[in-house]
Amino acid sequence: MFAPVYFDHNASTPTDPAVLEAMLPYLSAQFGNASSRHEYGRAARRAIDEARSQVAAAVGAHASEVVFTSGGSEANNLLIKGAAACLKPGLLAVSAIEHPCVIKPAEQLCKRGWMLEKLAVDADGRVDVGHFAEVMARKPKIVSVILANNETGVLQDVESLADCARMAGAWFHTDAVQAVGKLAVDFRRLNAAGVHALTLSAHKIGGPKGAAALVLDKRVELEPLIAGGGHERGLRSGTENVASIVGFGVACTLATERRVRLAQRLLELRGQLEAGLLGLGATLFGQAAERLPNTVYFSFPELDGETLVGHLDRAGYAVASGAACSSANPEPSHVLRAMGVDPELARGAVRVSLGRGNSKEQVAGFLNTLQATIAGLQRLSAMSA
Amino acid sequence: MFAPVYFDHNASTPTDPAVLEAMLPYLSAQFGNASSRHEYGRAARRAIDEARSQVAAAVGAHASEVVFTSGGSEANNLLIKGAAACLKPGLLAVSAIEHPCVIKPAEQLCKRGWMLEKLAVDADGRVDVGHFAEVMARKPKIVSVILANNETGVLQDVESLADCARMAGAWFHTDAVQAVGKLAVDFRRLNAAGVHALTLSAHKIGGPKGAAALVLDKRVELEPLIAGGGHERGLRSGTENVASIVGFGVACTLATERRVRLAQRLLELRGQLEAGLLGLGATLFGQAAERLPNTVYFSFPELDGETLVGHLDRAGYAVASGAACSSANPEPSHVLRAMGVDPELARGAVRVSLGRGNSKEQVAGFLNTLQATIAGLQRLSAMSA
Repeated sequence: MFAPVYFDHNASTPTDPAVLEAMLPYLSAQFGNASSRHEYGRAARRAIDEARSQVAAAVGAHASEVVFTSGGSEANNLLIKGAAACLKPGLLAVSAIEHPCVIKPAEQLCKRGWMLEKLAVDADGRVDVGHFAEVMARKPKIVSVILANNETGVLQDVESLADCARMAGAWFHTDAVQAVGKLAVDFRRLNAAGVHALTLSAHKIGGPKGAAALVLDKRVELEPLIAGGGHERGLRSGTENVASIVGFGVACTLATERRVRLAQRLLELRGQLEAGLLGLGATLFGQAAERLPNTVYFSFPELDGETLVGHLDRAGYAVASGAACSSANPEPSHVLRAMGVDPELARGAVRVSLGRGNSKEQVAGFLNTLQATIAGLQRLSAMSA
Repeated sequence: MFAPVYFDHNASTPTDPAVLEAMLPYLSAQFGNASSRHEYGRAARRAIDEARSQVAAAVGAHASEVVFTSGGSEANNLLIKGAAACLKPGLLAVSAIEHPCVIKPAEQLCKRGWMLEKLAVDADGRVDVGHFAEVMARKPKIVSVILANNETGVLQDVESLADCARMAGAWFHTDAVQAVGKLAVDFRRLNAAGVHALTLSAHKIGGPKGAAALVLDKRVELEPLIAGGGHERGLRSGTENVASIVGFGVACTLATERRVRLAQRLLELRGQLEAGLLGLGATLFGQAAERLPNTVYFSFPELDGETLVGHLDRAGYAVASGAACSSANPEPSHVLRAMGVDPELARGAVRVSLGRGNSKEQVAGFLNTLQATIAGLQRLSAMSA
């Protein structure tokens, strides 16, 4: 099989072999429905209980605070729409650089009497503290700020922001899907600062697709998106995806064990990659901000990002042009627009997101291939000019 | 490993080995996000496209009518709440014997200005045609009637009911989760009769947990429950669970190939089981109605269903007391209540749901064990009286 070098870990990660091994019994002999009151059911329930403890441990939460969902998008929708359904309509504030699965449900609420304020960010993609304070003074009821942005990797000082939001009495949510496994994420500490809910997802940390969690302060009242048999304390009905949940638990444990060393290695690779890109004349987005150790988001003036991604794919490197989830969308990235990036430059955006399987040799090979590709594209462009 | 005889196929089914084999590449080398524009992403997209065709073929639908969800509960919630969100509040009618994942979202809508009418059933669990016609005369906007009930296995004449609902101008949905694989289910034909949406689920037909579909007439406007990146034609955002979807596709193909012979075999086993149960003095629920070939729902007077299930479990037989999804709920089954079954008798309800791996020998062994168990329980009860 043709196996390009994988540089798109913010879109999805390889399932760890130990994760798959832990899942396999639940895709064969242990196929019970966890609600069933016989041995097959109890075996499934025990497996889910263990996974819940593993997920909780990875983010410093109590197992009883973990609500399993089918994915990060569902968890984010559950928090935004579920909390709103239990409140009188009012002001809702989300950062302008949220993932679409926070922005879209927030926009849906505008049809139900809610007012939406998008929180501004600066040129490096950090939430503008002045604008944030202004919005908080208007007493929003729900606030959501992404911990680490999926496109730029830029981190937000969620603790300080939550502290400010607390004075407004808002429920504060953070999408930590990209942060977990790369940074220390401690829900107890965040909760003490005023964060009431946090999203994480299995397939971004070496786990399978189909499992994620909303970690939730129990004071937050939520109406379920999926109502029915009353699973997950009534917050998310539906037969549990036991195998994916088991894999999620193991992935969380592995991510915790590996995090410090992995982050160090990724940071070295990122440094190597950024030095090379700057040498080739790239613009790096969010360069002055604290960022995830694995994410580099760049652009070359006058080169289209989609085109570059296509050429790199054929040359054996899997990278992204903006967020994978919106790559059906030809518009320039809303994250870069919010940062005030020139639309022409934004259209050139390419994201490399490194992971555990990547090496210095791969980064060096990529830089060579990129140089050749750019030269080729610039020749073509000069010929057609 | 202790492996009791599995008689609870309406709760979940063993994952077919061929299904697991098809899934494995997507839990290892082919881990791409289907939205990514590189070879890993395209491989995932192709796999989803193929599965979509397989699912569509199994129920006589077009691939473009299949909306993948994480499970049957999500699909049912999506239809009920998603359709309601695009309509002015009005009357909503669902049968009194729907699965909780239809009844609960319908009840949630009552908080948003909707009126809910529960459609009555007769003593054998069939929708009361007179009451149905009366309710249709009041012009409901959404109607949902389960094709085959999960507890009793009783079938509804959904074609006739939809035809009647059509005159009311309602969107008509049927939960076919238990029907697919056991009965011929043809969405084209149902659609011609006035059915606009149908739910099916992978793990009820030898597929994995974590994948299901809402098959949807495109004239039905739906607001997504999970909004975000715009997956599934904007109706269900979130990174697709590629492995489970692939397994769902294969399970659909196998279910279609096996259906006629399997149904015949199950019917024979059901006949053997029912004859034995009647010989032991059991009451069979829905006995006079057309039912799924695999489902037997019975009760012995003065014996508690939960207790009997516990004893049978220890004796090596995995059966259910009422629907697995609500087995946390000590109330007698809402399905039996709607049928007017005496509460005392309803509390004794035990469900056996047969499947592909079951044999005559297992049924005979079960009947012997059941006889001994009942005798033991009756002795105990006589001693304590």
